[in-house]
Amino acid sequence: MSHNSFGHLFRVTTFGESHGPALGCVVDGCPPGLALDADDIQGFLDRRRPGQSRFTTQRQEPDRVKILSGVFADGPDAPQLTTGTPIALMIENVDQRSKDYGDIKDKYRPGHADFTYEAKYGIRDYRGGGRSSARETAARVAAGGVARKVIPGVSVRGALVQVGPHRIDRSRWDWAQVDQNPFFCPDPEAAVLWADYLDGIRKAGSSVGAVIEVVAEGVPAGWGAPVYGKLDADLAAALMSINAVKGVEIGDGFAVAELTGEANADEMRQGNAGPRFLANHAGGILGGISSGQPVVARFAVKPTSSILTPRQTVDRSGAETDLLTKGRHDPCVGIRAVPVGEAMVACVLADHFLRHRGQTGR
Amino acid sequence: MSHNSFGHLFRVTTFGESHGPALGCVVDGCPPGLALDADDIQGFLDRRRPGQSRFTTQRQEPDRVKILSGVFADGPDAPQLTTGTPIALMIENVDQRSKDYGDIKDKYRPGHADFTYEAKYGIRDYRGGGRSSARETAARVAAGGVARKVIPGVSVRGALVQVGPHRIDRSRWDWAQVDQNPFFCPDPEAAVLWADYLDGIRKAGSSVGAVIEVVAEGVPAGWGAPVYGKLDADLAAALMSINAVKGVEIGDGFAVAELTGEANADEMRQGNAGPRFLANHAGGILGGISSGQPVVARFAVKPTSSILTPRQTVDRSGAETDLLTKGRHDPCVGIRAVPVGEAMVACVLADHFLRHRGQTGR
Amino acid sequence: MSHNSFGHLFRVTTFGESHGPALGCVVDGCPPGLALDADDIQGFLDRRRPGQSRFTTQRQEPDRVKILSGVFADGPDAPQLTTGTPIALMIENVDQRSKDYGDIKDKYRPGHADFTYEAKYGIRDYRGGGRSSARETAARVAAGGVARKVIPGVSVRGALVQVGPHRIDRSRWDWAQVDQNPFFCPDPEAAVLWADYLDGIRKAGSSVGAVIEVVAEGVPAGWGAPVYGKLDADLAAALMSINAVKGVEIGDGFAVAELTGEANADEMRQGNAGPRFLANHAGGILGGISSGQPVVARFAVKPTSSILTPRQTVDRSGAETDLLTKGRHDPCVGIRAVPVGEAMVACVLADHFLRHRGQTGR
Amino acid sequence: MSHNSFGHLFRVTTFGESHGPALGCVVDGCPPGLALDADDIQGFLDRRRPGQSRFTTQRQEPDRVKILSGVFADGPDAPQLTTGTPIALMIENVDQRSKDYGDIKDKYRPGHADFTYEAKYGIRDYRGGGRSSARETAARVAAGGVARKVIPGVSVRGALVQVGPHRIDRSRWDWAQVDQNPFFCPDPEAAVLWADYLDGIRKAGSSVGAVIEVVAEGVPAGWGAPVYGKLDADLAAALMSINAVKGVEIGDGFAVAELTGEANADEMRQGNAGPRFLANHAGGILGGISSGQPVVARFAVKPTSSILTPRQTVDRSGAETDLLTKGRHDPCVGIRAVPVGEAMVACVLADHFLRHRGQTGR
Repeated sequence: MSHNSFGHLFRVTTFGESHGPALGCVVDGCPPGLALDADDIQGFLDRRRPGQSRFTTQRQEPDRVKILSGVFADGPDAPQLTTGTPIALMIENVDQRSKDYGDIKDKYRPGHADFTYEAKYGIRDYRGGGRSSARETAARVAAGGVARKVIPGVSVRGALVQVGPHRIDRSRWDWAQVDQNPFFCPDPEAAVLWADYLDGIRKAGSSVGAVIEVVAEGVPAGWGAPVYGKLDADLAAALMSINAVKGVEIGDGFAVAELTGEANADEMRQGNAGPRFLANHAGGILGGISSGQPVVARFAVKPTSSILTPRQTVDRSGAETDLLTKGRHDPCVGIRAVPVGEAMVACVLADHFLRHRGQTGR
Repeated sequence: MSHNSFGHLFRVTTFGESHGPALGCVVDGCPPGLALDADDIQGFLDRRRPGQSRFTTQRQEPDRVKILSGVFADGPDAPQLTTGTPIALMIENVDQRSKDYGDIKDKYRPGHADFTYEAKYGIRDYRGGGRSSARETAARVAAGGVARKVIPGVSVRGALVQVGPHRIDRSRWDWAQVDQNPFFCPDPEAAVLWADYLDGIRKAGSSVGAVIEVVAEGVPAGWGAPVYGKLDADLAAALMSINAVKGVEIGDGFAVAELTGEANADEMRQGNAGPRFLANHAGGILGGISSGQPVVARFAVKPTSSILTPRQTVDRSGAETDLLTKGRHDPCVGIRAVPVGEAMVACVLADHFLRHRGQTGR
Repeated sequence: MSHNSFGHLFRVTTFGESHGPALGCVVDGCPPGLALDADDIQGFLDRRRPGQSRFTTQRQEPDRVKILSGVFADGPDAPQLTTGTPIALMIENVDQRSKDYGDIKDKYRPGHADFTYEAKYGIRDYRGGGRSSARETAARVAAGGVARKVIPGVSVRGALVQVGPHRIDRSRWDWAQVDQNPFFCPDPEAAVLWADYLDGIRKAGSSVGAVIEVVAEGVPAGWGAPVYGKLDADLAAALMSINAVKGVEIGDGFAVAELTGEANADEMRQGNAGPRFLANHAGGILGGISSGQPVVARFAVKPTSSILTPRQTVDRSGAETDLLTKGRHDPCVGIRAVPVGEAMVACVLADHFLRHRGQTGR
Repeated sequence: MSHNSFGHLFRVTTFGESHGPALGCVVDGCPPGLALDADDIQGFLDRRRPGQSRFTTQRQEPDRVKILSGVFADGPDAPQLTTGTPIALMIENVDQRSKDYGDIKDKYRPGHADFTYEAKYGIRDYRGGGRSSARETAARVAAGGVARKVIPGVSVRGALVQVGPHRIDRSRWDWAQVDQNPFFCPDPEAAVLWADYLDGIRKAGSSVGAVIEVVAEGVPAGWGAPVYGKLDADLAAALMSINAVKGVEIGDGFAVAELTGEANADEMRQGNAGPRFLANHAGGILGGISSGQPVVARFAVKPTSSILTPRQTVDRSGAETDLLTKGRHDPCVGIRAVPVGEAMVACVLADHFLRHRGQTGR
């Protein structure tokens, strides 16, 4: 993937810093004729928006998206449709509190990208983390809203499956629960437990990691472009590119190391609509190509490093010092990563749908 | 990543099927003036070559690489140097046994890409798995040999750290051991245990998964191209694109889910040559940019699905049937993935070195 | 080049329609630490802006550019610098007259892209030509303003060298004249003649074509990425992608067909700073690589098809009809192509500077 | 376009030097299921092959192409089909005369890329021009042979339309004549005149330029990806990337500068199968999108700089000297550019067919 773009035929370019005038994206290569207005996208942004519960940062951003280009309504009563030209989406930053950045202006926050951005570029927009802020992911979610229009037969849903040491019980998985709790948790009992657990983390000014699972159903067999544009390779890059992600799995993921060939290979029988599989260890991808089964991806998000406990660090002059992060932060930044993960998966699938159609005509 | 190419400035395109005339790659964008001859590359291919122990497939391929272009020696005694033009590398297939493919010609091997290749393309080169064969990875290893020349100050080394349920004891990690056993295992005691364990697997005609770790030392702070060309995002794609890989981790990987912010953030002190870190949970990458610490990546390889136990499947006509895979196969295909993982990491690093130099001049 | 992006390391993505809310671009991969504020870019936009003389369309657009991201001033008195992150530039459309598009809504304007956009996308934003409007080139000019910052030692200047049948006298070429007339004409006598000639064209409601020449001085030897990323190949694509361009030449261009090898090859002598050339038939590019001589490119712009004479056409229903274009138009749209051509050349050069530096370290 | 690759979905990567072991290409993204064997490609290579008349270089190369990958025949009597995986094509160099390169080893041939390759890379494969040799175009022609299979309804034909000052009479244009003379000349009378003219050039050890026209018929309306992947922009890059090309035109090309809007805009009437045009000044492309008319591109090739007349130059040490080129050379290298131009146009069209199908499903 290039610097700030990803995808080949459905190509997303994002821009924007945490405390600049605006952030957004340009979605290029979208098929024409798809109904699209700002509300379609806004719904996804609202799910990602911070400040909706005590478990996410209290920064208040309305995150209103504007469509700047790429759509057209042929008359006042006509639906607004994509035209096939680039769709620019913009979200203005409104909560740019004027404040003193003195502390983080010169000190490198451990676990954050302060030091590496400065090492790379020799300059760093320290306001709210600049480009490395989680705020950047709003643009991904907006792009994902467009991507979903491209693949209407595909359902892309995400859920939080682990918070700190606490995993869900998969036997209780219920997609309907995901929007019933502030964690996108499919297991109602885990959600109760997590609330308690995260209250403790939050009050301690600490933070904790999480694991998110995204499932795409309705993906037909055949998407993916081996051997480097494999569907799983592109998903891995897309998910790993989300802030704070340190691991990505497809299907059984790391658990395959312990499996034998007998246990791991998903056997096949003949179904009404062609071959069907008796299991889905593969997570819906074989040889980098979708198999027609649900595509299952999982990713791990580290705890945010913005915590109230002082940590050892250095400043730009090389002096050793301590740093603690005051102000708004996320006790579990992984929660808000759920709609971001969904968006990235939707974008990758939309791109591979078009690429597959381009090469094969199907 | 596009179909069969990856990288931006250091760009690798591979080709070839398991039983075609040849496989190979074109490495484009290599800096000029680097000493390169076939022997430099051959050493890496020899490490990947099958048939070197009873724990890998017995297919015998000399895997001799020829350099077709992109190098020049200015006189009979002058060193052969890269010229900056594309370097084509070719490996001829010599062990293409004439045989009857009747069984796998029409049946989809469970766990393999037979069904998905056919679903995508409507045609399938079934001889030895065609393009989806592990044989394809020889071209990656060859490209990696060129990549290492581009980043001479960086050491890229891999090791097998888990076979089936058996993990190494990291306290016994000794890089010198890696070439002393047929498993690229850094823990000599684990290697002994694995030999026994894999003999059992092999005799049972079964197979098992594995985890590989690749460590790159000497990577300076600053490589990576956020937010989609993050170093970890490109590593994730590169490693996930290797056959049979189902998971990728950077640094602590999935374990970060259980960590608190206090435990996870690597604190900093001032060292002689600038900031240094007191730990490396991040695996050498923060915000998608290298931190100067060792870059640590890990990936899980599933057990090969070519086993002697019959498995349920269907054939192209839709008839239900059983299949068992006779002939040569790998009890633990993860072993040979070690040099492949190294090669992919080397290619990604070489590319990011050039991209960073391009943008920043450093 | 992909749909709406061009360049590899210095990569420009543009968006926007003639009558949408805004148009703009995202410039990705810009080196960090370059002083950049909106005024730097505004100057170039002002040169392209319509309505500055009677020889260009009377549409009034202030074309004020806003920088949405990618720059940072470290304190109120510090200069605003690029940070290496994507630079988003936005120009809001303010002169979107509410009007009846009835005539062009359904009829295909001959010579315009109405029919082909509809053939491709099945939908067409007919307001002012939508994406195919010359208005789109404002985003190119904005991007060019950033590109010039990347190559401060290079001067990129353009001039109109032919209007209709009237060519300049090259012996009178004077760069200082270019800003002294409404035509970017380097020959003051030609400018006087063109004023008369174009007044006639304008009053007749007609239009005429033109040829623009862009010269880049200060390009060192070595830029260009043969054999497909040749400097001249990228220039050709960049210039041909400008609206209404039908031809591109480098150096002597089509005149080389009539030359012999003796006349065409630029001989070399030794200068103070290395080899120098005795002529520049090559236009500063040999084998796709800059030679250190001025890079000379030329492109032909067709007459705008918006004229007052009725032309035969068909409408969407297939009925035959006539069409004449009322309202604002350009008697010679080639005039405003001068700053656009400069911008495209600057972007290509900036990209090749970074690519060359990436591959070779120089 | 990147270094040695072009195209997005139909992507061609070439490699090889004039006097290395082999040259060739990898064609990636080809649709599966197309009948393809070496003979299909060989025919096009034979047209480009040198030494077929006294008007081209006497270097003898059989230029036999081998398909290394990407095709499969399902049984001994089955047709060989593309599989959708990368198609590698290789042409071994057999006429690598062992000779003394002493003269051109150190001297920069004026008009050639010797100096610029060395300025860029610091090293130069001087044997036969290395990568900058016209020999490289054999790989383009091979790729073009594959491209034609992708667009079977499109006819791509080229012709030489000008040699030195001598243009064809377009009223005598007869495609059937093109293969009846050694010049690919569609005007039999011009061919006779050219033979005389070029005999004079050849005997004088001189050379001369030429203009080639390529016409693609059967291209449906809708191909092209504005605004940077315009069909004409990609054609311009593709043609300008051919060795020695200095200008590219679409349709009326530079002549549009002299036209008025009335004369230039192709009027439309309703035909049996939708809108039809009354003229084709546009060369089949409007707004960067094909219009359904024949696509017409023209390019100018400079005279080769390898001539028998001594020219002033310098050597690597900076000493001034003279140089004349002994041995085999082309009096009009433009002749052999005809099949090369066809191949480049075919590749661009194949790519845009797939891209259009990917985005729109048509």
